[in-house]
Amino acid sequence: MEFSSKLLENAVYEMSQLPGIGKRTALRLVLHLLRQPESQTINLASALTTLRKDIKFCKKCHSISDLEICHICSNPNRVQDTICVVEDIRDVMAIESTSQYRGLYHVLGGKISPLDGVGPHDLAIASLVERAKSGEVSELIFALSATMEGDTTNFYIYKLLKEVTIRTSTIARGIGVNDELEYADEVTLGRSIINRIPLEQALKSS
Amino acid sequence: MEFSSKLLENAVYEMSQLPGIGKRTALRLVLHLLRQPESQTINLASALTTLRKDIKFCKKCHSISDLEICHICSNPNRVQDTICVVEDIRDVMAIESTSQYRGLYHVLGGKISPLDGVGPHDLAIASLVERAKSGEVSELIFALSATMEGDTTNFYIYKLLKEVTIRTSTIARGIGVNDELEYADEVTLGRSIINRIPLEQALKSS
Repeated sequence: MEFSSKLLENAVYEMSQLPGIGKRTALRLVLHLLRQPESQTINLASALTTLRKDIKFCKKCHSISDLEICHICSNPNRVQDTICVVEDIRDVMAIESTSQYRGLYHVLGGKISPLDGVGPHDLAIASLVERAKSGEVSELIFALSATMEGDTTNFYIYKLLKEVTIRTSTIARGIGVNDELEYADEVTLGRSIINRIPLEQALKSS
Repeated sequence: MEFSSKLLENAVYEMSQLPGIGKRTALRLVLHLLRQPESQTINLASALTTLRKDIKFCKKCHSISDLEICHICSNPNRVQDTICVVEDIRDVMAIESTSQYRGLYHVLGGKISPLDGVGPHDLAIASLVERAKSGEVSELIFALSATMEGDTTNFYIYKLLKEVTIRTSTIARGIGVNDELEYADEVTLGRSIINRIPLEQALKSS
């Protein structure tokens, strides 16, 4: 791609550094901004800069927060002895939107992935073990993705906790509530048979 | 979507104002920036702001340029009496990349589209008519997209030029050079039959 303007080229280059945004898409986005009022670009630039500079992570659960302790950790109505372990804040948002969970969270910041250069020390694992050992926690719910990296991370943390008497669980994997069996992938369907639950319990939760 | 941080919510909101970027994608992009060094966010923000503030359009052809007159308009080796009329700078870049065109351009900045609130006065049409009437131009090549809006724009300009003795042409539409006839859409195939060219001419240009 040959540009007639260094300013344009530079803006397109920086935009194309974002994941999933190629050069062509970047050019389309930048040209869009040029057609909009200047304020839109200023607002975008300042929102990103302010976030990046002033970003805070909750000292307890490591979730993104504008306060030292996030609104979930500081809420006395939440169940204080249950911690759900997740990869990032999107998982917190997804679980919160179900209104089915009243405990606390622990945001690892990713999962162990040697291929991506992410080791245990890049994640908030030490502070999770500390919380688990504090005596204030009775159950850890693992909600990492069911990939090799997620399983590795689960297993790594599980080993660290083997001397701690604490209940550990993982969220149920199975066929989605409105999904048809015939379209389900085999691994999921297989797991949902192995981990079947008493009918009575299912009827109660529906 | 419920956010635990106003800063995050604001950054996601501004990012999702870009075309084709929904709230979920915006969140993914913003979280990516948070994991990268701060410099990446600063560079992106400053590249966009600088472009938006210092952007210049060539006084002759209205293409984006860092100079008053762009490098194509100011190049004495370009054919000065031929102007190719395009919608935006992406079309200039596409045509330039073919190395087949040695004339000048005129960037309209869009096409007439009442549904999108774009009328003739929002486009660089008056200055095109002025250039056409200057006596320095012998041919206008219309390279707008072959949509209703493109055709409307072509026709609108064509009417304005009816008293000007100037050659007008439009780029050839037809089956792509490496495309198979059986996969071509009917309109394109139909046009390429109606607008067939002498075999001798085709052999020369291949």
